[in-house]
Amino acid sequence: MTIQVLNGPNLGRLGLREPQKYGTTTYAELVELVEATGREMGVEVRVRQTDDEGEMLRWVHAASDAGDPVLINPGGWSHTSVALRDALAGLNAPLVEVHLTNIHAREEFRHHSYVSGVADGVIAGLGVSGYILALGWLAQQGVR
Amino acid sequence: MTIQVLNGPNLGRLGLREPQKYGTTTYAELVELVEATGREMGVEVRVRQTDDEGEMLRWVHAASDAGDPVLINPGGWSHTSVALRDALAGLNAPLVEVHLTNIHAREEFRHHSYVSGVADGVIAGLGVSGYILALGWLAQQGVR
Amino acid sequence: MTIQVLNGPNLGRLGLREPQKYGTTTYAELVELVEATGREMGVEVRVRQTDDEGEMLRWVHAASDAGDPVLINPGGWSHTSVALRDALAGLNAPLVEVHLTNIHAREEFRHHSYVSGVADGVIAGLGVSGYILALGWLAQQGVR
Amino acid sequence: MTIQVLNGPNLGRLGLREPQKYGTTTYAELVELVEATGREMGVEVRVRQTDDEGEMLRWVHAASDAGDPVLINPGGWSHTSVALRDALAGLNAPLVEVHLTNIHAREEFRHHSYVSGVADGVIAGLGVSGYILALGWLAQQGVR
Amino acid sequence: MTIQVLNGPNLGRLGLREPQKYGTTTYAELVELVEATGREMGVEVRVRQTDDEGEMLRWVHAASDAGDPVLINPGGWSHTSVALRDALAGLNAPLVEVHLTNIHAREEFRHHSYVSGVADGVIAGLGVSGYILALGWLAQQGVR
Amino acid sequence: MTIQVLNGPNLGRLGLREPQKYGTTTYAELVELVEATGREMGVEVRVRQTDDEGEMLRWVHAASDAGDPVLINPGGWSHTSVALRDALAGLNAPLVEVHLTNIHAREEFRHHSYVSGVADGVIAGLGVSGYILALGWLAQQGVR
Amino acid sequence: MTIQVLNGPNLGRLGLREPQKYGTTTYAELVELVEATGREMGVEVRVRQTDDEGEMLRWVHAASDAGDPVLINPGGWSHTSVALRDALAGLNAPLVEVHLTNIHAREEFRHHSYVSGVADGVIAGLGVSGYILALGWLAQQGVR
Amino acid sequence: MTIQVLNGPNLGRLGLREPQKYGTTTYAELVELVEATGREMGVEVRVRQTDDEGEMLRWVHAASDAGDPVLINPGGWSHTSVALRDALAGLNAPLVEVHLTNIHAREEFRHHSYVSGVADGVIAGLGVSGYILALGWLAQQGVR
Amino acid sequence: MTIQVLNGPNLGRLGLREPQKYGTTTYAELVELVEATGREMGVEVRVRQTDDEGEMLRWVHAASDAGDPVLINPGGWSHTSVALRDALAGLNAPLVEVHLTNIHAREEFRHHSYVSGVADGVIAGLGVSGYILALGWLAQQGVR
Amino acid sequence: MTIQVLNGPNLGRLGLREPQKYGTTTYAELVELVEATGREMGVEVRVRQTDDEGEMLRWVHAASDAGDPVLINPGGWSHTSVALRDALAGLNAPLVEVHLTNIHAREEFRHHSYVSGVADGVIAGLGVSGYILALGWLAQQGVR
Amino acid sequence: MTIQVLNGPNLGRLGLREPQKYGTTTYAELVELVEATGREMGVEVRVRQTDDEGEMLRWVHAASDAGDPVLINPGGWSHTSVALRDALAGLNAPLVEVHLTNIHAREEFRHHSYVSGVADGVIAGLGVSGYILALGWLAQQGVR
Amino acid sequence: MTIQVLNGPNLGRLGLREPQKYGTTTYAELVELVEATGREMGVEVRVRQTDDEGEMLRWVHAASDAGDPVLINPGGWSHTSVALRDALAGLNAPLVEVHLTNIHAREEFRHHSYVSGVADGVIAGLGVSGYILALGWLAQQGVR
Repeated sequence: MTIQVLNGPNLGRLGLREPQKYGTTTYAELVELVEATGREMGVEVRVRQTDDEGEMLRWVHAASDAGDPVLINPGGWSHTSVALRDALAGLNAPLVEVHLTNIHAREEFRHHSYVSGVADGVIAGLGVSGYILALGWLAQQGVR
Repeated sequence: MTIQVLNGPNLGRLGLREPQKYGTTTYAELVELVEATGREMGVEVRVRQTDDEGEMLRWVHAASDAGDPVLINPGGWSHTSVALRDALAGLNAPLVEVHLTNIHAREEFRHHSYVSGVADGVIAGLGVSGYILALGWLAQQGVR
Repeated sequence: MTIQVLNGPNLGRLGLREPQKYGTTTYAELVELVEATGREMGVEVRVRQTDDEGEMLRWVHAASDAGDPVLINPGGWSHTSVALRDALAGLNAPLVEVHLTNIHAREEFRHHSYVSGVADGVIAGLGVSGYILALGWLAQQGVR
Repeated sequence: MTIQVLNGPNLGRLGLREPQKYGTTTYAELVELVEATGREMGVEVRVRQTDDEGEMLRWVHAASDAGDPVLINPGGWSHTSVALRDALAGLNAPLVEVHLTNIHAREEFRHHSYVSGVADGVIAGLGVSGYILALGWLAQQGVR
Repeated sequence: MTIQVLNGPNLGRLGLREPQKYGTTTYAELVELVEATGREMGVEVRVRQTDDEGEMLRWVHAASDAGDPVLINPGGWSHTSVALRDALAGLNAPLVEVHLTNIHAREEFRHHSYVSGVADGVIAGLGVSGYILALGWLAQQGVR
Repeated sequence: MTIQVLNGPNLGRLGLREPQKYGTTTYAELVELVEATGREMGVEVRVRQTDDEGEMLRWVHAASDAGDPVLINPGGWSHTSVALRDALAGLNAPLVEVHLTNIHAREEFRHHSYVSGVADGVIAGLGVSGYILALGWLAQQGVR
Repeated sequence: MTIQVLNGPNLGRLGLREPQKYGTTTYAELVELVEATGREMGVEVRVRQTDDEGEMLRWVHAASDAGDPVLINPGGWSHTSVALRDALAGLNAPLVEVHLTNIHAREEFRHHSYVSGVADGVIAGLGVSGYILALGWLAQQGVR
Repeated sequence: MTIQVLNGPNLGRLGLREPQKYGTTTYAELVELVEATGREMGVEVRVRQTDDEGEMLRWVHAASDAGDPVLINPGGWSHTSVALRDALAGLNAPLVEVHLTNIHAREEFRHHSYVSGVADGVIAGLGVSGYILALGWLAQQGVR
Repeated sequence: MTIQVLNGPNLGRLGLREPQKYGTTTYAELVELVEATGREMGVEVRVRQTDDEGEMLRWVHAASDAGDPVLINPGGWSHTSVALRDALAGLNAPLVEVHLTNIHAREEFRHHSYVSGVADGVIAGLGVSGYILALGWLAQQGVR
Repeated sequence: MTIQVLNGPNLGRLGLREPQKYGTTTYAELVELVEATGREMGVEVRVRQTDDEGEMLRWVHAASDAGDPVLINPGGWSHTSVALRDALAGLNAPLVEVHLTNIHAREEFRHHSYVSGVADGVIAGLGVSGYILALGWLAQQGVR
Repeated sequence: MTIQVLNGPNLGRLGLREPQKYGTTTYAELVELVEATGREMGVEVRVRQTDDEGEMLRWVHAASDAGDPVLINPGGWSHTSVALRDALAGLNAPLVEVHLTNIHAREEFRHHSYVSGVADGVIAGLGVSGYILALGWLAQQGVR
Repeated sequence: MTIQVLNGPNLGRLGLREPQKYGTTTYAELVELVEATGREMGVEVRVRQTDDEGEMLRWVHAASDAGDPVLINPGGWSHTSVALRDALAGLNAPLVEVHLTNIHAREEFRHHSYVSGVADGVIAGLGVSGYILALGWLAQQGVR
């Protein structure tokens, strides 16, 4: 079992893009932090990022085949992608959605996430710590 | 003239993904069934699936250049992709939209399809039979 | 088992009413075509039309008692009759809703159908062929 | 003075239609129960059901002429018939609207009833007992 | 050519129903007045009323076959009947919609009429005079 | 008593502006026609047009002071001017709102008129005849 | 088993507050009437009123622990308190919601009640009789 | 510095109320777990629950005066209490909102929380673990 | 006669809570200022604040019994409490609603106040001066 | 510095127009009252009224140039004029919006005012006293 | 042929009004710039500004009579004036709408412009350069 | 510094797709025209088109790294892609959005663009000239 940490569009720009909003941690640092945390927890973790919806769907399909838990930060797709929701609905392991910022305190169009409707839980606004917390929770769950 | 049968995101997962919703026929079986039906009807049929919106757009552009009729199951893009609608609006041959499930009896956000506004007709809820019925109808139409 | 083909308000005017929208096939021709198709398929088919909601409800009640599959074109009642939806919800055999035109590409108030919420499937925009396709599908189903 | 108990579309199907929703009491049993209750209460009661809106309107017109109180279960017309509301607005005796199920706990489109806006009161969700309770209340009112 | 004056549900109750809203002229007086006006204008006029939607639809179908102009007061169906709108859309002669009251100054749900979308014109709030004015206008039009 | 016929913005362009929508009668012809009709009916009529809201308000104030009936075609202000509605609400004589076109069959934003809420009646879609009909009705009313 | 009759905010003001709306029966008289009815029916009844949401929640919690049926008039909280709905959702005995007035014929914001979504049934507009009717119904139910 | 863990209405019922929704951990166990976690983390933690909005407001005021971080599960008040939002907006230390269930996958009216708009972050759907994760995050933050 | 000055939730925090929004005057200073103004005007004034809705309701009930005019700043309850509106609707003396900030220039959800619908007048955005102005106005009114 | 008191459309009709709504004080009396109050307060006051939006805009521009505080009763333009809002947004002195009636207790379309979004404060429903109160407040402010 | 450059309400205040929003170029400088550009391009240009809707309508009528292209900055009327839209719909030469600021990135009520629906094109957010660009485009068009 | 001219989905079909809507200029001609204009203006210009959202995002990221100004025609993504908006929000150079058609005069769902909210300006409806005008404007700006 590997916990799949999947990052959506623009997240590769972390630290470069609007740091006052998304923080100064770079994406590389985020990857390192999540992987280190996985090692500490003794769980296998794989962290990836893509700007292509199709690639993301294929990663979710693979997780579905492998029965892997998923931690996803769907970025802007949260609010617009029914295709991603449909893919995630097919998972048979725990799913946590993470947002760096508190989407509920931002523009109206960010308040709704298609992903939330099929996730087990949601963590928003806690920055990169949100990943660590979600990882901890996923590590404790059995496969559903 | 070839009838282009174009399948959108997650449809490659047919039979694997939520079979209680989408049925147990696999995607491979669907392809075979549609191709067999084409042969019986004496029409050329090409069945493809993609999780990449860009690839789908290019297939539609090619169909448009060739004057080919299109049977499309846009999956989750039905409800979110204006780009796909715009591409399909440029077709100059018949277009039928097919959904495996009855989208009108599911979540509110599935009731509206951008594709429906530019399609000749829509078949929903009849499972894989919907493809066969649509194929039959397309085979009987002249190029518009 | 008889497949009940039930047509709602104004459908008796087919071929007379706005042919540029609804086509030039007359209602009599539609009946003949559907009956002929039934004979070819070896299924019993009964085609009726009414402008009275009460009569339609009684036909649905009778189909319900008989366990007959129903093909319904609810016409304008699609968008306004909860009573019809309630009657159809009581069926215990397959139900397909057919529309001659693509209601999703017409006025906003035609996009929603109360009937769709309780039908197995919907075919819209394929003209009188829609009836033939629906008949074929119903003929293949067992009683649910 | 006769208390008019008027039942709208599909209510003749009581006990047959979706018993898990509407209960197992048949319409005939309902009639009997209501009439028996009327006899016990010493009030004249007339129970009728129709699937034809026009017939229902004429019954309401007659009640209006006679100054009779009305107990109405408008069924699906509750949510769609302004004509029925208009007829009932012309009554000059008490009016109670009864629903077998709790319409406020069902689909969104059942939450609003045109009849409620002109009724004295509404009873919903108490099954056939709702009729008995309403009858008791009407029996106690003077003509307004 | 006969001008068809078609009255919808509850209009037979004119003068009896809520006279403070609809006036004290009875329906019989309205008929007489309209017929007398027709005679004065030298046009044939036929005035009818029904509480049955199906009957109204058949009257409209007949007017359509005859090429007769129509003056309709659709009563409560104005706001709820797509079937009536569809029937009227099939007319090939002038169509005027008349309301006794000013529906735009009443409840919100009366502001919209499905009939208005397919009528040539609308007269509301002028009481029975509205019929006379509409009749005059129709008498002056040629068949379209 | 003088019937005040008040025309709002752009109505001076009648016959020049989009004749396929508003007809070919010029504003001068409309004035002449309305005045001639007034003479025939034996009522004093004053016809004016303005593109200035303030001037219109002052005309309404004067009519209010004089107790004059008002026939108003508020043009585009119908849909946007609460100030005009407020002025007209202060009239103490009959008020009819006239529209040349059937505003209910045009763009959504034309369906609502602030003026309708305070008018006795509304005539729409009957072209310049609407003025004549409204004039006839106003001539028959006493001052309220 | 005790039937808990729970009254929400302002109901202690019954008979004092807007009697033209809520009637002239005082709260003390209501209590007496309900208790007398309970005695007649041979069921234990406890009637209480509070203006404190927290106190109401604790009463509901206690009813939940005791498995007591509940008759609640939530007053203004009907339309605003999700907390009350959540507490009531935890009951394991029948629940009836009672309103003195017909909330469906009053201001728009009174049409929706959070409580209705979790109640077995609703009685509105029958004044204090509504309590008696609800009591009768609850007395006849077994614990669910 | 003490981390204030504040629980809103009905949360004292944890383990008793709808365990299939909220889990089987009792409130007492939750308190114990959170306190134990605090001890492990070496931070002072105070856990309280109230069904009274006023009490909750005073606890928030006190936290504000003390500069204490707050972990709040506002329960049903999340969706209805502007007063609570206003109180929390006055905090000058970190604030995390926790929900046991994934409110975004439940009824529409639970999707919006007034509290989220002023919180630093939100954790939903992770059950009692959500408290532990939030506690960990708060323990790591400095006072803002 | 005593003018009741009633302050809702969080107003006891005045001067402490977000002074850039609500000003630096403390609640104690506000009380003193209002009482001093009352003395100058020669009217009895009683100023109170509560965070408990139930307590506020009881204060309103008492004012209602005494026939006292009320100046209320409902704070966050303005936008959410139908119970408070109902209590205030029962007053039989003048009622003015005061807000320190201009609620119409803040978040959308603050634009609507349930209290405004039953108040004589509203003053918003003039800070503590709003209390003084309202007091002056109330002092000049007779009991209604 | 002169306090500019600007009155919008129809306000010159005060005392004449619907006195049951707007009171019996005439506009001339209002002017006199406001001027007298200004003299008492020792501030220069200029009171004007216009039915022309353009004139009102120019008055606001002049006030803006002079740095004068503004008391505006925008009448019907409150709800419809973005142009007026834009002009007032350019002021660099205090601005109070006054309404004679409580617009929040009237028709829905009067609840929103474009002016409120750029005003310092709003007084509504206190009749002509509202002007006096606003004047007092403006007299106490420095130029912002 | 003269290109008519028409400026709506408050635009005469350019450079004075909220320069952080609208820039520091004064209206006089804008006129000069536009005229100079016209001379360079060899086209006749007339630049005018008005705060009176009626005057603007008359300018549009005159442009319509002359067949002149129009560049309009409708200011606040964009969002509220159907009358202006109607006047512009009558033009028979190209029409460009220009906004100094990006109205789509400002308040919600500025996103919709009635003028856009009848314009050939729209330029927003490019400051005074928007005028120059629009002028260039208009100069290149033939009369339609 | 290079001005990045980025074209979204279906724009490669220019001249082929619905020329009555989008014009007859081909995409190749557009590229040539824009490049030629760049040469004339003495600015470096790079014109690209993609049907893949991910590729577009990477181009925007690159522009962001290089500090390049961007001219974007987002095609159908304008109305649906939050991911694209987020990427563009990270630019640190001027951004202009160009549409060939006047999206504000087309279907409702095209009126809103996610891109507009983060762009400096928008040009719509001026066909390929819109690119030239935008290029001119961008060439004149400094890097922000």
